[in-house]
Amino acid sequence: MILGGPAIVTLVTDFGNRSPYSAALKGVILGVNPAAAIVDLTHEIPPQNLRHAAYYLLQAIPHYPAGTVHIVVVDPGVGSERAILLVELSRQYLIVPDNGCWTWLDHFYGPAGSVRQVTESRYWRNAVSPTFHGRDIFAPVAGWLSRGVAAECFGPETSSWVRLGLPACDIGTEEIVGEVMFIDDFGNVISSIPENAVPAGARVQHGQEIVTRRLQTYADAQTGELVYLMSSSGFLEIAEVQGNAARRLGARPGDAVHVKVTMQPANP
Amino acid sequence: MILGGPAIVTLVTDFGNRSPYSAALKGVILGVNPAAAIVDLTHEIPPQNLRHAAYYLLQAIPHYPAGTVHIVVVDPGVGSERAILLVELSRQYLIVPDNGCWTWLDHFYGPAGSVRQVTESRYWRNAVSPTFHGRDIFAPVAGWLSRGVAAECFGPETSSWVRLGLPACDIGTEEIVGEVMFIDDFGNVISSIPENAVPAGARVQHGQEIVTRRLQTYADAQTGELVYLMSSSGFLEIAEVQGNAARRLGARPGDAVHVKVTMQPANP
Amino acid sequence: MILGGPAIVTLVTDFGNRSPYSAALKGVILGVNPAAAIVDLTHEIPPQNLRHAAYYLLQAIPHYPAGTVHIVVVDPGVGSERAILLVELSRQYLIVPDNGCWTWLDHFYGPAGSVRQVTESRYWRNAVSPTFHGRDIFAPVAGWLSRGVAAECFGPETSSWVRLGLPACDIGTEEIVGEVMFIDDFGNVISSIPENAVPAGARVQHGQEIVTRRLQTYADAQTGELVYLMSSSGFLEIAEVQGNAARRLGARPGDAVHVKVTMQPANP
Repeated sequence: MILGGPAIVTLVTDFGNRSPYSAALKGVILGVNPAAAIVDLTHEIPPQNLRHAAYYLLQAIPHYPAGTVHIVVVDPGVGSERAILLVELSRQYLIVPDNGCWTWLDHFYGPAGSVRQVTESRYWRNAVSPTFHGRDIFAPVAGWLSRGVAAECFGPETSSWVRLGLPACDIGTEEIVGEVMFIDDFGNVISSIPENAVPAGARVQHGQEIVTRRLQTYADAQTGELVYLMSSSGFLEIAEVQGNAARRLGARPGDAVHVKVTMQPANP
Repeated sequence: MILGGPAIVTLVTDFGNRSPYSAALKGVILGVNPAAAIVDLTHEIPPQNLRHAAYYLLQAIPHYPAGTVHIVVVDPGVGSERAILLVELSRQYLIVPDNGCWTWLDHFYGPAGSVRQVTESRYWRNAVSPTFHGRDIFAPVAGWLSRGVAAECFGPETSSWVRLGLPACDIGTEEIVGEVMFIDDFGNVISSIPENAVPAGARVQHGQEIVTRRLQTYADAQTGELVYLMSSSGFLEIAEVQGNAARRLGARPGDAVHVKVTMQPANP
Repeated sequence: MILGGPAIVTLVTDFGNRSPYSAALKGVILGVNPAAAIVDLTHEIPPQNLRHAAYYLLQAIPHYPAGTVHIVVVDPGVGSERAILLVELSRQYLIVPDNGCWTWLDHFYGPAGSVRQVTESRYWRNAVSPTFHGRDIFAPVAGWLSRGVAAECFGPETSSWVRLGLPACDIGTEEIVGEVMFIDDFGNVISSIPENAVPAGARVQHGQEIVTRRLQTYADAQTGELVYLMSSSGFLEIAEVQGNAARRLGARPGDAVHVKVTMQPANP
C-alpha cells in the first residue's frame, strides 16, 4: 500500500441486486476486517455465465493495484466437489471457484504466481451452507487476506485446475474466423479477433451483414451507421453509432464473426 | 471499531439507480462525515415493498459488525405522521421508517436494545422536504451517528411501533403450510418454512406442482430438474437446477407452499 | 478534509452494470490513489442521454462536501475533437466531457470557479484508446486530483464551452408552460416548473389529463390517486399515489406540462 490506503476488496457476482446475497457477503468481509475498502464491481453477471465473467475479469482486473483482493462468485457448481482457488496474479489476489472463470486472465496476463486450494477451514465461517460458499468461505477468506494473513495459510498450492475454453479465433491469410466474445450494455459487439490481426481494408461479416466502414471512434460516423473499430479492449468491435448493434444484428455471444481480407489488385 | 476502520454506513432503498435520490443521500452523509465508509447494499427493493425489504434485512444485517449504521428508506408513508425510528439491535444501528420493515429482524435476532423516535431536528437538514426524509433526516442522522453522537441525542425511547405480519407458517403433524417469502434473482423460491421443521422424505407442493427430490446443493442434480433444499437462509427453498423455478412455477410472494409428511409404513 | 477522511471520488456513467467499463475505471483510479474513497453514484444513465445526466447531476452533486471529485462519463462524442473539462464549482471538482451535461449545475448553483481543458497528457494513461477516455484520461486525472495535484496542472482555463439547452419553462399570468424534465424510478413525472411559480388552486395538465389535487406529500391521498405536488427537487411533480404516474400518463421527457391558473371570481 504505497499511500497507506486501506486494503481493497472487490466483488464480481451474478447475485443480482434485489437479493440480499451481496449484502451478506460484504457484511462478513467487514465483520472480519472493518477497515476493508469494499468496491462493488458488478452483481449483474448473467446467472452462471462463466464466459461473461471471464471476459469481464479480463477487462477489469488488470487495472487494479498490487495487493487488491478480488472475490468472484459465479459458481454453478457450489456445494459440489469443485475446489475454491486462491490465485495470485500480478501481485493481486483472486478468490474464485475452480470453474475456469479466471483463466482467460491467466492466458493473457499470466502466468499466475501461485494457485492454491482454499482448504483451511479455520478461516471460514463456523457453519458453511452448501449453497452459499460466497458468504461462508470466500468472504471471510477475503477478510483475513485483506488483514494481512499470508496466502499460504489458506491452503496448499496446486498445479491442476479447470481451464475455460478460449474464444475461438482462426487467423488465415484470406480470412479470419472469430466469434462474438461479449456484448456490452451499449449493444457493441466485441469479437475474439485481436486488433493487430485485422489488415487495412478488411470487410467484417456477422450473419448476412457485411460491415465495410472502419472507424477510429464512434464520433467519426453518422448516427445509425454500422461500423467496425478496434475497441478499448484490444479486440475488433462492431458498433452502431449512437445505437445498438447487437439488437440490429441479432448477435449473441458465440456467433461467428468473419474478417475477409480484401486483396489489393497489383498495379496494372 | 476493533481495527480502527472508518464508521460504516449502509443503504437499503427502493430508489432505483436511474434516479438521483441515492446519490443525494450519500452526499448528505459525506457532508456530515467525510470519513464515513459508505456501503450500498441495494437501491432495488421493489417500490414500497415492505415484505421484500423485511426479508432482505433479515438476511443481510446480522452479518455486519458492531457499530454499523444502516439506513433503510422504503417509505410509502413519507411525510405522514409515521415516526422515524433509530433502532439499536445487536450493537448495530438502523434508521428506519416506522412501518415494520425492520421487525422481522427484531423477531429473529432481537429483541432490540433500544428503539427511539428520531425527533431532534437539530441533526436534520435545515429545510426538510415532505417527500424526501431519506435525504433530509435519515442521511444527516446517520452522518452524526457515525461521527459518534450518542443514540440518545436523536430522540426519546419508545415502546410502541408498527410490526409487520410475520410470514405465515403452520406446522402440523401431517402437513406444514407456509408461504413464498421471497424470490431471489436466480428465481429460487424461498418459503417461510424453517429448515428444521421439514422431515426426511417430505413432499413439497406449490400450486399443482409436487416436488419430491431433496438435495444438499444444486450440483447434486441435473440441469432443469425441480428440487427442494434447505437454502442458505435457513428456510425451505424450491429451485430449478441452473434454471428459474419461480418462472417455471409462476410463483409469487405470498403463494401457499405445502409440505406433506410422508408416513413411513410400519414394519409389516 | 475537515475530518481527515480520504479523498472522495464519485462516478456517474451510462456504462451499465454488465459491462466491465466502470470496474476498469475504478481500478485505474485506485492504481493512482489506492486511498481514494470511491462512491458509485450510478452507471445507469440511459445511454448517451445528456439531459438525463444533467438533471441527475443537478439533484446529486450539490449535496457533496468540498473537495469531492466527480467523474461524469456520458460521452457520445468520445474520441472526437470535443474537449474534456475540469470544472471547479462550489469547491468541488467535475471531470466531464464538453457536451453540456454539467451546465444545468452551473446555471442553478454556479457560476463555476474555474473551467479548464484537460490537456496535460502526463497525467493520462500511456496509451489512450479513442473510445474509452473514461478509463484512460478521466480516471487517472481523478486519481491525481484526489491525491492533491492542483487543478491548474491539468490544463489551461477556458471561457468557452458547450451549454445544454435549459428545460423550457414559460411563465405567464394565466398559464405556465413547462416540460417533463425527468421521470424517476417510481414513475413520478418531474416538470421544469419551479415550485414558487405555481399559485394555489392551479390545475396541471399533461396531454388530455388534468390534475387538480395538490398535496404536501404522497400519504395525503388514496392509493391510485393522480395528484401534483412540489417534489424534493423544488419542481412541480405529477405523481400517482403508490403507483406509476409516467406509465399511466404515457409521459416522456420533453412532453409539455401546462399549469392553468384558476381565476378567483371577484366578490359579486
